[in-house]
Amino acid sequence: MTSKQRVLTGITTTGTPHLGNYVGAIKPAIAASRDEDIDSFYFLADYHALVKCEDPERVQRSTLEIAATWLALGLDTERSVFYRQSDVPEIPELTWLLTCSTAKGLMNRAHAYKAAVDANTASGEDPDYGITMGLFCYPVLMAADILMFNAQRVPVGKDQIQHLEMARDIAQRFNHRYGEHFVLPEAETDEHVATLPGTDGRKMSKSYDNTIPLWLPEKKLRKAIMKIKTNSQEPGEPKDPDEASVYAVYAAFASAEQRASMRQAFADGIAWGEVKQQLFELINAELEGPRERYEALINNPERVEKELAVGAEKARALSGPFIAELREAVGIRRLA
Amino acid sequence: MTSKQRVLTGITTTGTPHLGNYVGAIKPAIAASRDEDIDSFYFLADYHALVKCEDPERVQRSTLEIAATWLALGLDTERSVFYRQSDVPEIPELTWLLTCSTAKGLMNRAHAYKAAVDANTASGEDPDYGITMGLFCYPVLMAADILMFNAQRVPVGKDQIQHLEMARDIAQRFNHRYGEHFVLPEAETDEHVATLPGTDGRKMSKSYDNTIPLWLPEKKLRKAIMKIKTNSQEPGEPKDPDEASVYAVYAAFASAEQRASMRQAFADGIAWGEVKQQLFELINAELEGPRERYEALINNPERVEKELAVGAEKARALSGPFIAELREAVGIRRLA
Repeated sequence: MTSKQRVLTGITTTGTPHLGNYVGAIKPAIAASRDEDIDSFYFLADYHALVKCEDPERVQRSTLEIAATWLALGLDTERSVFYRQSDVPEIPELTWLLTCSTAKGLMNRAHAYKAAVDANTASGEDPDYGITMGLFCYPVLMAADILMFNAQRVPVGKDQIQHLEMARDIAQRFNHRYGEHFVLPEAETDEHVATLPGTDGRKMSKSYDNTIPLWLPEKKLRKAIMKIKTNSQEPGEPKDPDEASVYAVYAAFASAEQRASMRQAFADGIAWGEVKQQLFELINAELEGPRERYEALINNPERVEKELAVGAEKARALSGPFIAELREAVGIRRLA
Repeated sequence: MTSKQRVLTGITTTGTPHLGNYVGAIKPAIAASRDEDIDSFYFLADYHALVKCEDPERVQRSTLEIAATWLALGLDTERSVFYRQSDVPEIPELTWLLTCSTAKGLMNRAHAYKAAVDANTASGEDPDYGITMGLFCYPVLMAADILMFNAQRVPVGKDQIQHLEMARDIAQRFNHRYGEHFVLPEAETDEHVATLPGTDGRKMSKSYDNTIPLWLPEKKLRKAIMKIKTNSQEPGEPKDPDEASVYAVYAAFASAEQRASMRQAFADGIAWGEVKQQLFELINAELEGPRERYEALINNPERVEKELAVGAEKARALSGPFIAELREAVGIRRLA
């Protein structure tokens, strides 16, 4: 085994990647895959997708789109392990083993569950109205994802910090019962990660319907960027970049020099249309090479499937022996 | 596929089989395995054992003892499928798929969970104090056990009827979302199944510590039977068989003729020691052949393991294609 830090990232396969995903998660994660000191694991979380999404076509399509996205953007699959969660049957098995070592009280305190309960209570419904066991239990599945590969670090958004604490708690309880098998994972939150505003100025998010899909063809990308909300200031009027969504998006893609000269242009009264044109050019320059690769992959799913098969093999080379150790620990053993 | 009725029975691997298990569950189930009109499935429920038992040696030992017991008693493994739950990785996977289609409110209403909550509340604890997710979620695992093989009938005790209803409910919800994949199983409760009294007169149960282990060597079996509680009536006094544990145990093993003549002996004032001697002889006659086979198996776990391997292969020949169908249904699909 390696002494490198092991870092694990999961991507739920329910949506179509947008610029916000790219800037906030995909780009930094792919950069990390090239870091020699890190042992990176990336997985397509399709069992998690089932918690949120009842549409089988969408789960399948999203899996292809997300896998093709990460590959097109240059994920280093030689150095990292890139796999689909459902290709690792040891994960649902570990989920059950951990379920038996998880306090129900811990799950009662999960933010996502509590928010759903609060919403029900506020609208006069039964507290658990419409809540599935999938929503209630998914922190256990997430713990299995992490502990299966004994990841030391898990890059997460702030809303996920609690789930990491839960994974630690579950691991500790299992270790206490059955001996030290699991490393306690740590959440890694990057304060500097950009959250991109969407076309309406709020955080870009599927739930606000304000996203710009990552792989729009050039013309549509330009059109979408032109629609980003601005204020009514005229050309020639000095503008405040820190109040402008277009600048925030620009900054996420630009170099320090480009940012400085754009701030100057704002002070000099650049027209909104011109900012947007420059923003389009900047983004398009970054994405046009990957977009070609993405199109090639999406039209050749067999190639994506092959990459995932290689990843699954690497993942199972670890999960297989480890689940055998864990089964032995809990008493699921050969009789002879 | 066969048009026979498919009947499924699970045995949790936490204990050592006792006479009560034998009379109440094992003997009738083994008789059913010889019924040509039934397609029987029997499995060692070791994932369930983890909910109740943190002792790995006990889980392993109990698995061996229970498997050897069923084989020694003549389970027809040619005609039926006899397997260990943990040899079928499709079961924990199906558990997760079903988890996503299970209403949390349904689990809130499970008797076993509610009883634990009531006990906590009564003693002033937090309602979920000491309750694991294993206890809370196991009706979903049980649903997966049943639905994995589309069993039509599941022989259960009265305390398990609710779990069967839950399995039906979960199956219906999945079918509604994803199309008709599951048969709705039915609980089969046999009113005539004997519940055997233990040595103290209460129902024979591990939790009362009043059991007579099934495979005691002859001398110890005799000793245990001699300890069954009786009243202080003297030899020669007429006795009421329906008030006597020894008679209840006798009746469970005896033919109609034997029962009639024992009732007559009670009326004639048979001594308790004599009843017990006859009871010992009756039970011992029934068990001595199987006991020899049991001893041979327990000393040759490799043979038991081989039987289970054959069973696992038969089970997976069904569970493999079926989970593939279910994965396809929910959207966990090959990309190409």
